[in-house]
Order: sequence, then structure tokens, then C-alpha cells
Amino acid sequence: MKAEIIAIGSEILLGDIVNTNAQYLSRELATLGIDVYHQQVVGDNEERLLKAYDEAYKRSELVITTGGLGPTQDDITKESAAKYFNKKLKLDENTLKGIEKYFNKQGRELKGNNIKQAYFPEGAIIMPNSCGTASGVIIEEGNKKMIILPGPPREMESMFNEQVLPYLEKLTDCVLRSKMLRIFGIGESFMAEELAYLIDNGKNPTVAPYAKGVDVSLRITAKGETEEECLNLIEPVEAEVRKTLKDKVYGEGEITLEYKVAEMLCKSNLTISTAESCTGGMIAAKLISYPGVSQVFLEGAVTYSNEAKVRRLGVKKETLNLYGAVSKETAREMAEGICRESGSDISVVTTGIAGPGGGTKEKPVGLVYIGLCFKGETVVEKFIFQGERDKIRERATMNALNLLRLKIIEKGYCRE
Amino acid sequence: MKAEIIAIGSEILLGDIVNTNAQYLSRELATLGIDVYHQQVVGDNEERLLKAYDEAYKRSELVITTGGLGPTQDDITKESAAKYFNKKLKLDENTLKGIEKYFNKQGRELKGNNIKQAYFPEGAIIMPNSCGTASGVIIEEGNKKMIILPGPPREMESMFNEQVLPYLEKLTDCVLRSKMLRIFGIGESFMAEELAYLIDNGKNPTVAPYAKGVDVSLRITAKGETEEECLNLIEPVEAEVRKTLKDKVYGEGEITLEYKVAEMLCKSNLTISTAESCTGGMIAAKLISYPGVSQVFLEGAVTYSNEAKVRRLGVKKETLNLYGAVSKETAREMAEGICRESGSDISVVTTGIAGPGGGTKEKPVGLVYIGLCFKGETVVEKFIFQGERDKIRERATMNALNLLRLKIIEKGYCRE
Repeated sequence: MKAEIIAIGSEILLGDIVNTNAQYLSRELATLGIDVYHQQVVGDNEERLLKAYDEAYKRSELVITTGGLGPTQDDITKESAAKYFNKKLKLDENTLKGIEKYFNKQGRELKGNNIKQAYFPEGAIIMPNSCGTASGVIIEEGNKKMIILPGPPREMESMFNEQVLPYLEKLTDCVLRSKMLRIFGIGESFMAEELAYLIDNGKNPTVAPYAKGVDVSLRITAKGETEEECLNLIEPVEAEVRKTLKDKVYGEGEITLEYKVAEMLCKSNLTISTAESCTGGMIAAKLISYPGVSQVFLEGAVTYSNEAKVRRLGVKKETLNLYGAVSKETAREMAEGICRESGSDISVVTTGIAGPGGGTKEKPVGLVYIGLCFKGETVVEKFIFQGERDKIRERATMNALNLLRLKIIEKGYCRE
Repeated sequence: MKAEIIAIGSEILLGDIVNTNAQYLSRELATLGIDVYHQQVVGDNEERLLKAYDEAYKRSELVITTGGLGPTQDDITKESAAKYFNKKLKLDENTLKGIEKYFNKQGRELKGNNIKQAYFPEGAIIMPNSCGTASGVIIEEGNKKMIILPGPPREMESMFNEQVLPYLEKLTDCVLRSKMLRIFGIGESFMAEELAYLIDNGKNPTVAPYAKGVDVSLRITAKGETEEECLNLIEPVEAEVRKTLKDKVYGEGEITLEYKVAEMLCKSNLTISTAESCTGGMIAAKLISYPGVSQVFLEGAVTYSNEAKVRRLGVKKETLNLYGAVSKETAREMAEGICRESGSDISVVTTGIAGPGGGTKEKPVGLVYIGLCFKGETVVEKFIFQGERDKIRERATMNALNLLRLKIIEKGYCRE
């Protein structure tokens, strides 16, 4: 089946917003095995809309539109679709009641315009909107199908997942399930190489890597006749991925590395403190994004200056003079110092050169030492990160969290 | 003039990337007064490309394409454009030399494929690429104009700004200049209301608000025959905005609030320390994103637990018992404590309830006290922020930085 996506709205044509809906829908349709050869964006103008529908059906059987379902006179997606398919608009009492309820709940009065949102092309399938008042529509006419979705991404996505996806699964005679594995410690391209035999050969399930900054994940998507069949297809591939990537897989679904680590600390009842130089509070800030962390997070120190390292953490002046602030020795004393000061079970510390200035041949920009003291046992790892100041700081932060995670596993406090 | 934007590439149709180029170009064209009624996305397929060009020229005189200029056989934007306009492809020696130089610099060998990037439709205007090897092209044929740009946003944007914008200014007989004012302490919609008389009436210059998270800015764009004329048009409007928003305007151009504040501290040679509870290191991390901050940033403490507040900052146990950790009194003692401990001129501290749990009727989720000690003089401000945990923490962080900025101005260390 071929599909075409039409985004409707002058806010996209004026560049006020970016058309993320098209990306979302394209990705979903690709996974369903539905080809998308064209995307269009048009304004809320009847003549241009009718032409756009016409163009689209010359090339595709399925048209999915987003936007133009609001209560104002500008919004004419449903109206123009009705005209295109030669159908009358009819009031749907159920939808009207739903809109009234929505307004009452918000303590607002239902105005004349909003009643427009309860009218639909005769015979169409109505899709209620769980996050707003703009219902979606599915029109079936001969072999032409049109799926009309609201513009706000949150409304569009939840309607797609709850109502359109099952419809398309039925249409394509398949069920679709996917599993997202969250990964740290390997770049996207390197992972793609390591798993090339799965990514390239994977027709069902498909295996696709995603990257967003330092965050890498892998989505395994299976197509089958039942949910069970999909899960059975995913299982061996997931096992294969885990066998290859080992402890680089840190979680599943929407979890982040900082959440995972904070959760592990809380579950293991291991108290923690941090001392940060180049990351300047970023590790602490990440850990504290986890709501329950107060029970284990004892203290963080941002010791950017040498004086603070000496006064706060008891780093020896001789160490700083002899080896410099960015050194294995200083990192070790920082890690042991903050543990001693705070009385925590674990500490994690950073000292490095984030740039742009301050680098030398021996100690280039990007050099970062990450120290970890675990119940009196200290290790320091040396990294050289690429990129600009903020990238280096972010990479140091995420690697510090990851070392923490691996250490907790190694010490047998959590299995993963 | 009417223009149409065609993004070319299967990576957009598969949903692997979002089409930000279309947004960028739409916004730029809108400011130039060029109407965009359609955007298209098509794959790298000759037949579909030719049809897309054809469709576009039925509706518009100017077509701007992005993507499909790479060295591989898939990339056929230039080739199909040449075919559409019935022109031969010709090698451009200058471009070839440029590509060779680029490869030598990177220590890579020029492969056969890359020579393709030095061929252009005969008679076309060639636009060198300052960030890569894919040159852009402008084809003029009768009243049809086609501007062919590379896909990677960084390359596309710099080529647009350096080469396409002057071309379009000449075409539309106008020069365009804009000024971005950076604002803190007022929401986008409230600002839009306050400045409605400028935003709604502004034809030339136009005044447009932008918001990205807590960051609000205002772009004043003037159209004229010369740069001088534009700047003269912008000046009184900028003065009007500054008169209305006063010290809410914190900077111009690409600066951020944290950069501004760190810069002010460095310029005024005021040393600083931080003590953070709910923001957990975010203020320190923001300040340390400024490269030169080491000269003034003495120390940061992340005192999330009561014990740390007592041990590190000398907050009295009675204060915590009597008023609680989230109180004006605790904030005051934190601010004075970290100043005393670190010997800094200024301190900024936070204590609050970031949620989702821990709120009461008297102290709801979102309640944050921000304390500031400036050379012995302490003030504490109370805020109630809306939103989820991370939003509350971010708002607290940005407001803390802003209070710092206003205090430095108030004390006469910087004028703005």
C-alpha cells in the first residue's frame, strides 16, 4: 500500500512550527510496511486542499492529513474532505456531548464555533480525541482511504497509537510490537557495525538504531498476526543484541541513564556524594532529577577552583603542584575526600579540561579523569572526549554515571 | 513572488529525520515577503522529481530544493534539474579544486564519486559550500528560478545566509536586517500582549516573539533599500521595546542568560559561590558553561539533605526544625553560610519542593525560595513554579540567574 501525508496549516508554511507530525507518521508507516513517496504541506485554503487531495490520490490509496480541525472558520480540513468525497456533514450527538463535558470540566462556556467540531462527513468513522476537542475522522470510499488527524503532536500521536494503528494493522493484516533497548558506551555507527548482521538482514523483526546526543537506543520491531507472535519474534533478537552488547544495554523503554543509576542506588540503599570540577554540578543535577534520590544523595561539591579542592575535599597542595588539578592523583584524592567528608558509601568525581582554552600537548582539551570511590576502594579512569566545551562536559557526566552503574553491578548490588 | 520548497531524500520519507530545512526556509521567505503556499517532500527518484518540479512551477515562480547533492549515485537533484531545464552538465574546474583541497585537508583520498559534485547545469550560478563539498546551484530560465541547496542544515543555513539571501534581496529589491532581543522575566503570551501594538501593527519592521522553553526572545526585522535604512527602522522600535520591557531585556543575538550573568561576574570581578537544594547543581553547571568563569566561581555546594545543609553551610538545626528546609529562613542561612565558607562576594542558593511528592497545602510542589547574599546583604525571594519536576527545577535555576543579574545591575557593577 502507498500512503501520502498532507500537513495542513499556514503556521507550517510560515515556518512558525516544524512539521514533526510528518516525521512521526512516516516512521510509523515505514514500520507497518506502508510506502510513503510524498509528503505535502498546504494552507487552510479550499481550492488548494482539494487539489492536494486530488494529486495525492493519483499516487496513493491512503492519505493521512494532520491539522485544520480547530473550531475556527479557518479550519476546513473535514469540510473540504467532505466536499472532495461528495458527502454531507452531519452532527454527531455523542461527540457534541463529549465537547460539552470537556468545556464544563475546564469551567469554560461552549461557544457556537465549537459545535463545528461535532460535525463529520456522513458515514465516516469518528475517532474521539483523548487530549482535546478535535475528533479525528476516517473516510473510506472505494479503494481510497483518508485519515484525518488533529495538528497538535500530543493529540495526533495518542490518536494514532490508540485508534489509527489498530485500524492500519487490520488493513495490512498485521500486528506490530516493538521494544526499545537503551544503550550506553558505544557510538551509534559502531553499534550499527557490530549489529550489522541483525540490522541489515532484519526484515521481521526489524532492528533500527536511534541516536539523540550521547544517547543511543535500538528499536526491535516485529510484525505478526498476534501480539504473542510478535513478542516471540522479538525475544531471540533481543537475546542476540544483549549477548553482543552485554552490559552496554542499561534499560528498556523510556528510561534514561540517570534514572537507571539513581534507581539502582535507591534499591541498593547505597549512599552517594559527588565532587565535580569540569562537569560543574551536572552529575549531581542529573541524579537529583530522580524524585526519590534524597534518601541516598548525601552531598555534592562543585570544586572548580584548586582552593575549593583543597578546602572542601582535602586534596593535598603537593598533589596539585606535582601532578596538576587534571590528573589521576587529584581525581583519586577528590573521590576519597568527598566520601570522607560526607560519609557516603560511594562517590563519583570529575576533573578535566573542557576547553576551549587551557589545553596542552600532554593534557589536551577533552582530557577528563573520572574517579569512583566504592566503600573505600578507589578507581580512576582516563578519558579523552571530542567536541566543544558543552559536549565534553556532557560526555564526562554521562560516562561518570555509567561507571557508577557498572560498579554497582560489578559489586553485586544489582543484577542489571 | 510565490515560492515552493521541495525537500528531497528518502530519509525524510522514512521518518529518520525531521524536515527542519523547510521550516527554516519558510520563515526566511516569509520575512522577505515571498509567499510559500506549498511544501513538498519527495525521494531521490528521477520520475517523481521531474513531476514535483513540474507541479511546483504550475503554482510558483521560485522553487527551492534541499538535499540530494551528495556524491553517491542516489543523489540526483542537480541531474534531474538539468534534465528538467534541458541543460547539459558541465565540469567546473574551480569547484573540483576546492573539493580536492577539502579532501587533502582531511587527509582523505578523492574518490571517483566525488568528482560528480563538481558538475553543474550549464549556465547556472554555482554557490560554494563553506562547510562541505556539496556546492549549491541557482538556475534561471525565463521567469522560472530554481535554487538548489544541500541537505545538512548547517550547510544549507550558511549557504542560504551568505549567498541565497543577497540573491533574493536583489530579486525582491530589498535588504533585510534583523535584531534579536533576549528576554527574561515575562512569558511569551504576556509579552505579546504588552507589545501587541508593535507586533500587530508592525509591517516594517515586523516584531515577532519566539519562545523555546523558558527562553523568550523578540525578533525585529526591517526591510529597506539599504542596510542603513533597515537599521534606522529598527532603532526606534527597539527603543520602544526596551522602554516597555526595561531590564527584562538581558541581551542581544545568540547570548544566553547564563552566559550573560557569568560575563557580568567576570567583568565586575565579583566572586561567587552557590548552594543548591532542589536545583541540585544546575545553577553551578550553567555558570560553568561559560569558559572564563574559573576566575570568579569559588565553590558550589549541592546540599540536598538537611545534614548537608547543617554540616556544609552551617544552617542551624533549630531553623530547619522550626521553619523547615524549604523556608525563607533556611534560604537566608544557606546564602550566608556558603559565602562565609567560600569567602565569595556573592552567593546564590535555592531550596524548594520540586515534586512530584512532598507537597503540602502550605508548601505546595513548585514552592522555591531563592536566596542571594551580596557582600553581606541577603535577600530571599519566594516563587511558586508550575509544571513537572524538571520544569520547576529549570525555572528555579533560570530565575536564580536572573536575580543575580538584576542585583549586579542594581549595585551598579554593570549597566546592563
